[in-house]
Amino acid sequence: CKVHKVCVLPGDGIGPEIMDVATKALTVAGSKEGEEFEYKYCLIGGAAIDATGKPLPDETLATAKESDAVLLAAIGGYKWDALPSAQRPERGLLAIRAGLNAFANLRPAIVPRQLADSSPLKRELVEGVDILIVRELVGGIYFGQPRGFGTNEKGERIGFNTDVYSEPEVERIARVAFEAARKRGKRLCSVEKSNVLEVSQLWKEVVIRVGKDYPDVELSHMYIDNAAMQLLRNPKYFDVIVTGNIFGDILSDEASMLAGSLGLLPSASISGGGPGIYEPVHGSAPDIAGKDIANPLAMVLSAAMMCRYDLSIPKVADRLEAAVNAVLDAGLRTGDIYKEAPGTRLVKCSEMGAELMKHL
Amino acid sequence: CKVHKVCVLPGDGIGPEIMDVATKALTVAGSKEGEEFEYKYCLIGGAAIDATGKPLPDETLATAKESDAVLLAAIGGYKWDALPSAQRPERGLLAIRAGLNAFANLRPAIVPRQLADSSPLKRELVEGVDILIVRELVGGIYFGQPRGFGTNEKGERIGFNTDVYSEPEVERIARVAFEAARKRGKRLCSVEKSNVLEVSQLWKEVVIRVGKDYPDVELSHMYIDNAAMQLLRNPKYFDVIVTGNIFGDILSDEASMLAGSLGLLPSASISGGGPGIYEPVHGSAPDIAGKDIANPLAMVLSAAMMCRYDLSIPKVADRLEAAVNAVLDAGLRTGDIYKEAPGTRLVKCSEMGAELMKHL
Ligand SMILES: CC(C)[C@H](C(=O)O)[C@@H](O)C(=O)O
Ligand SMILES: CC(C)[C@H](C(=O)O)[C@@H](O)C(=O)O
Repeated sequence: CKVHKVCVLPGDGIGPEIMDVATKALTVAGSKEGEEFEYKYCLIGGAAIDATGKPLPDETLATAKESDAVLLAAIGGYKWDALPSAQRPERGLLAIRAGLNAFANLRPAIVPRQLADSSPLKRELVEGVDILIVRELVGGIYFGQPRGFGTNEKGERIGFNTDVYSEPEVERIARVAFEAARKRGKRLCSVEKSNVLEVSQLWKEVVIRVGKDYPDVELSHMYIDNAAMQLLRNPKYFDVIVTGNIFGDILSDEASMLAGSLGLLPSASISGGGPGIYEPVHGSAPDIAGKDIANPLAMVLSAAMMCRYDLSIPKVADRLEAAVNAVLDAGLRTGDIYKEAPGTRLVKCSEMGAELMKHL
Repeated sequence: CKVHKVCVLPGDGIGPEIMDVATKALTVAGSKEGEEFEYKYCLIGGAAIDATGKPLPDETLATAKESDAVLLAAIGGYKWDALPSAQRPERGLLAIRAGLNAFANLRPAIVPRQLADSSPLKRELVEGVDILIVRELVGGIYFGQPRGFGTNEKGERIGFNTDVYSEPEVERIARVAFEAARKRGKRLCSVEKSNVLEVSQLWKEVVIRVGKDYPDVELSHMYIDNAAMQLLRNPKYFDVIVTGNIFGDILSDEASMLAGSLGLLPSASISGGGPGIYEPVHGSAPDIAGKDIANPLAMVLSAAMMCRYDLSIPKVADRLEAAVNAVLDAGLRTGDIYKEAPGTRLVKCSEMGAELMKHL
């Protein structure tokens, strides 16, 4: 039995409530498999700004780097919205991604069979959808230089950013995506805007080259505007999607709606070798914070992804996922996924947690 | 009676077929109101590349500039896909937009009641949706400098683009959007990514400032990722959306799917004073070109928009729109919008055109 060092970042809003459920579930699931966890709690986001003035204190990054993996709940809230953007909670998120070089953001868009009716899309279109979006997370326009404000040749004030990718950056994310596709449906769709942008032309060229090493994976290419459309027209077309930082941000949020709710969607941001970041796709939901009504399941599923990808204890992941399935099958629903129907019951966050433990 | 000079660009693929229907319908509708049109046919896109080597010949741009408005069908096709991107049909489109300074792209996303069932979204969510997307069309990352290929400090090959907006650029598109909102539901949502990008921070700041002149319009702000989600979760929330070039490209294609088909969606790209460009949202559909099965209605509705915005002959626009409604009410459907149902009939492109004439 090894002790897995987990850096725990509860963050803001509903973060602490859902993290509480997830760590408890993780501890119990681990104990059944003889795995132990050591949790180091650190500050990030608004909570860190309040306590230290910085959205990502040095200590947090240092602890994260020494851990086997990072479990992050959510950051941000109205309270910090008025701060200049360089000091806002989001910066903490971007900084820890960059600091850990967590370049590959894996966002599954799965429509759980128990919830296929909550999708805004017709049931027959979304039932069985299982897409994995692989988003490049530490490059592109989010981090490109130069950026800032200035004046143009006419003396007008401008704001500008640079969207840029290098060959090695595209190559490493492409490899992650091809490897993932190989283990799944063996189809990869690369999404860019190469009919307009040079950064996309380089992207496409490199993806094609890397694809030569994966002849068993069927590679296709789609412009981002068309992808945004096809995701609605025929979501089952997609197996794995690989795309850049900003397109991935947009597409994964759009795709998350196929499930009708963000409440069950985890994500993993992995680096090559170092600790990855595991967090739910949803945000900190400040409007419902502290009311014990948040949905902890995406956080629990993020912990499961952590066990699978970074800690290599898939059996613990299996246990966590099975327990989530069991509570859903039992008809338990937090407010965000509740619809009055025979056999379903509205429960609080802590109650969902307690039921989950029973199934572990 | 004035003679309206229209520069007609049939372009590629299904372009010539649908343009044929649209110009005939326009001539007839105009004659009922005592309006005459002079059509000047010019080359653009693949057809222009084949004939002149350039996707936008100088003569086409010159003719467009001397016209009252430009009617464009669609460009592109497999045939030209292998060309280096600087010589591809899309460049003709970007060049005519820039050449005419057609900075405001208006894309209505309306779900026609006759087709509410073709939407991938549930009927109750999309019925009555009426969104106008105002997309900035001649700036942002599509045109920003510097752009191209190079090497970074590590000697790795890179591709890069610049996303940039100036205050006057944002101001003029914001005014178009506020004016449009004022004439409609009086709600404007500005979409950007100001939690990450400086170009978006400038955008948001200018939109807020311009908004002071429109106290009767309710202004809201949304990040692009959230907008991509809300468009599915609750499309009726939106009245007018204003956004930059690339976000508008993505969002308008996503929104077009609310209608279930691109077959009925027109667009207008207007400049301040000069001729605007009117074109369907759909593409050149090379796979069905020449088969007389394309849907000409979005092209006809684009001609109607032209009458309304550039030519100021709203009665002709009314006639065209009424005729489109009439053929849909009569159950006529081209393949793209056909679903077997009592009272509907599958027709060819030319047949749709002939029926349209009867209702004019
Ligand atoms: C909060 C924000 C900076 C972040 C992003 O844009 O990456 C979020 O939207 C996400 O997708 O994790
Ligand atoms: C063809 C392409 C360059 C164009 C764009 O991206 O603007 C198209 O997608 C559109 O939206 O009109």
